Amino acid sequence: MATEADPKAALINVSELAAQLPEEGQKKVALKVPKGTRDYGPEQTAVREHVLGKVIACFKQHGAQAIDTPVFELKDVLTGKYGEDSKLIYDLKDQGGEILSLRYDLTVPFARYVAMSKISTIKRYHIAKVYRRDNPAMTRGRYREFYQCDFDIAGAYDPMLPDAECVKLVTEILTSLELGEFVVKINHRKILDGIFEICGVPAESFRCICSSVDKLDKSPWEEVRTEMINEKHLDPAAADAIGEFVKIKGTSEEVLNILKANEAVMKNANTKEGVENIELLVKYCNLMGVDPKHVSFDLSLARGLDYYTGVIYEAILLARQKDKLVGVGSIAGGGRYDTLVGMFDPKGRHVPCVGVSIGVEPQKGLTEERLKILGQLWDAGINSEHSYKGNAKFLSQLQYCEDQGIPLAIVIGGSEIERGVVKLRNVVTKQEEEISRNDIVSEVTKRLAALAN
Amino acid sequence: MATEADPKAALINVSELAAQLPEEGQKKVALKVPKGTRDYGPEQTAVREHVLGKVIACFKQHGAQAIDTPVFELKDVLTGKYGEDSKLIYDLKDQGGEILSLRYDLTVPFARYVAMSKISTIKRYHIAKVYRRDNPAMTRGRYREFYQCDFDIAGAYDPMLPDAECVKLVTEILTSLELGEFVVKINHRKILDGIFEICGVPAESFRCICSSVDKLDKSPWEEVRTEMINEKHLDPAAADAIGEFVKIKGTSEEVLNILKANEAVMKNANTKEGVENIELLVKYCNLMGVDPKHVSFDLSLARGLDYYTGVIYEAILLARQKDKLVGVGSIAGGGRYDTLVGMFDPKGRHVPCVGVSIGVEPQKGLTEERLKILGQLWDAGINSEHSYKGNAKFLSQLQYCEDQGIPLAIVIGGSEIERGVVKLRNVVTKQEEEISRNDIVSEVTKRLAALAN
Repeated sequence: MATEADPKAALINVSELAAQLPEEGQKKVALKVPKGTRDYGPEQTAVREHVLGKVIACFKQHGAQAIDTPVFELKDVLTGKYGEDSKLIYDLKDQGGEILSLRYDLTVPFARYVAMSKISTIKRYHIAKVYRRDNPAMTRGRYREFYQCDFDIAGAYDPMLPDAECVKLVTEILTSLELGEFVVKINHRKILDGIFEICGVPAESFRCICSSVDKLDKSPWEEVRTEMINEKHLDPAAADAIGEFVKIKGTSEEVLNILKANEAVMKNANTKEGVENIELLVKYCNLMGVDPKHVSFDLSLARGLDYYTGVIYEAILLARQKDKLVGVGSIAGGGRYDTLVGMFDPKGRHVPCVGVSIGVEPQKGLTEERLKILGQLWDAGINSEHSYKGNAKFLSQLQYCEDQGIPLAIVIGGSEIERGVVKLRNVVTKQEEEISRNDIVSEVTKRLAALAN
Repeated sequence: MATEADPKAALINVSELAAQLPEEGQKKVALKVPKGTRDYGPEQTAVREHVLGKVIACFKQHGAQAIDTPVFELKDVLTGKYGEDSKLIYDLKDQGGEILSLRYDLTVPFARYVAMSKISTIKRYHIAKVYRRDNPAMTRGRYREFYQCDFDIAGAYDPMLPDAECVKLVTEILTSLELGEFVVKINHRKILDGIFEICGVPAESFRCICSSVDKLDKSPWEEVRTEMINEKHLDPAAADAIGEFVKIKGTSEEVLNILKANEAVMKNANTKEGVENIELLVKYCNLMGVDPKHVSFDLSLARGLDYYTGVIYEAILLARQKDKLVGVGSIAGGGRYDTLVGMFDPKGRHVPCVGVSIGVEPQKGLTEERLKILGQLWDAGINSEHSYKGNAKFLSQLQYCEDQGIPLAIVIGGSEIERGVVKLRNVVTKQEEEISRNDIVSEVTKRLAALAN
């Protein structure tokens, strides 16, 4: 299951074969799907429905009701909600009439719905496709059309109760989907804002500096710092001060202790409120039985979108690489957005909201699977390596094998994973055969022995 | 449940109130959904899911598997498939890249999928929204975004076996949905083509004359005849000859007998093949237990789309108006399209297909409901009337009541029907109250008596 909860998060890569066919297929007759999209065949659809069934069961257990909104919205509805990601919005052609755009997520349409229907409390879920002109979509392993499963609680309630429920829900769903290890990173927009204040960032630059921080899951600090200084004209001293803060991550207890010991933090109204919120959130999560190992407090978590106002979180799948658990992709994200409904309501009526969006695709993570297979081969003493690129091109990987004299390639893709097989490819003869996933070590050993003779 | 199986078919009208709110709502903040679309709240979504569950159960009983395709396709994929309806296709803006359009139906994407995946046999279903820039959408009671439930059988099989299964399936679904009386009109593209030949229509005009015939469900023959002669430059004698044929409708037996007694028909290769096909289709339907009252052979049925090549059918819901059953809307349509996959396949590989598309909307037909209520009021001796327009504006209907001194208006909409109530509105005081649907006669009688005093 690869996921696309967030345009900013690293994704588990998709099948290199699948990724290249549409690009290099029969251009003449244009027998292809649009870039960044794909068909779901019967098998994939069945898997997806099975997965969505589990997600829906969790949503319903929390008392959420399904709603549905149009696939496109007036362009104005989406304008000014997504920060730097607004450029990824698909617009419809002006065919004489309204100016429309495809929905970028399910959150903004939900807020528009709440305002338009004059709703003051609702707990809803919505499972539907969203559209992002991410570019280059396929090479980063991202789709331009993908499903999101959103759960949101709208209404004025006691602090952190709905927020904690969202975190709990994410852990329930990820556990139910049996995706392996995961962690929910948490942070708070007011903590980030307060840190920016403390570090001397001008108020009007908060959102754009926040966008820079958001890139820390993909880029090293040095790059982000350069962007802050060169592109966003931040004082280098302020950037360095931010750098000290966003390094801080750990268990909720550890990070809360660090922050509470910091006089500047506790004197700033924003950070103080954020710290108190997180403290309450963590307390409630513990009471609801969320395993503390599933929660990590990470001051570098920023979330890309403009509309968050409070707690933010992001769930990351983990895979064991040698002795370490490493993040292999974001699968869910969300947070509190208390002002979005008010942006739509004609009378500015505010309806505080918090929610979470889960990205579900019927394909098991290929990077994760690749690492598992590698581990087994290494443990069995078989020389093996893989491309360190999340989604290197299929043909260039084979070329590498030829150049290096590597005789055997293991090819995996979504369909192979679903069927519990891998393809063994003889690099020289180009012959492929499918073998059971469970027999990899013995089959590879046998073939290598044969090739050596 | 109103339906939108076919852009050409009359539809049960939707709530006049719902239709006007988006148009006349708060324009200033653009708090609206795009023209011709709407949100589904939790109640409507639950109803829709209940309905779709029944449809899916029928599809699965016939062994169909679900697939899913992108919401947009390369524009070229859709070009040349929809005849005069092509102007209703939504295009995406050219943002630098491929030229894309939203899907207009699920059939063309299915054929593209079959060609692209090199499939030779599949029985699939697909339930998803399709997009049509029908204009003026709301005033004709049509949506621009609506769900279709498609079932198709691709593969070379013995004549009429898959076709008969589709007709049988439609009767199963409509029975399961308890929508009241219905009839499946059948016809055959080759019968139409043969009739055109017999009547002296030039071969290159077959498709455009077929489009004119397709309008007979909405327009009187005289209008269609004028269009054929003035816009499509058909010889008046040919038009008149067509007019004699397209009048023919009745039970399958009746119409088959008329055609088989016609020497010109039986000498024409096309009509002869069509008649033999329909004879076989009817025989198989009877064997599978389709009640003959549910099938009507109607030579005026043409279906708008270019891609049909054989049997065509359309299911119409019926409502009792006085002593007569009258059609109140198309709910399903389909037919055989044997050349569509070949149009996509790079090698022109042909995969014959037949299918049916069911339009399901979670709203009971308002016209139908209106007629039922009127019947009860008349039977109870209460003076009452209604607008003969399928979807007259709410305010103009109230204005009419005022002008005519009609004291009481009954207001119904989707939500009222779902909840088993109607609104009674005092035209003068503008006060409204909800009463149970079952108490209409007694409540109206009581109020009219009170008003008369």
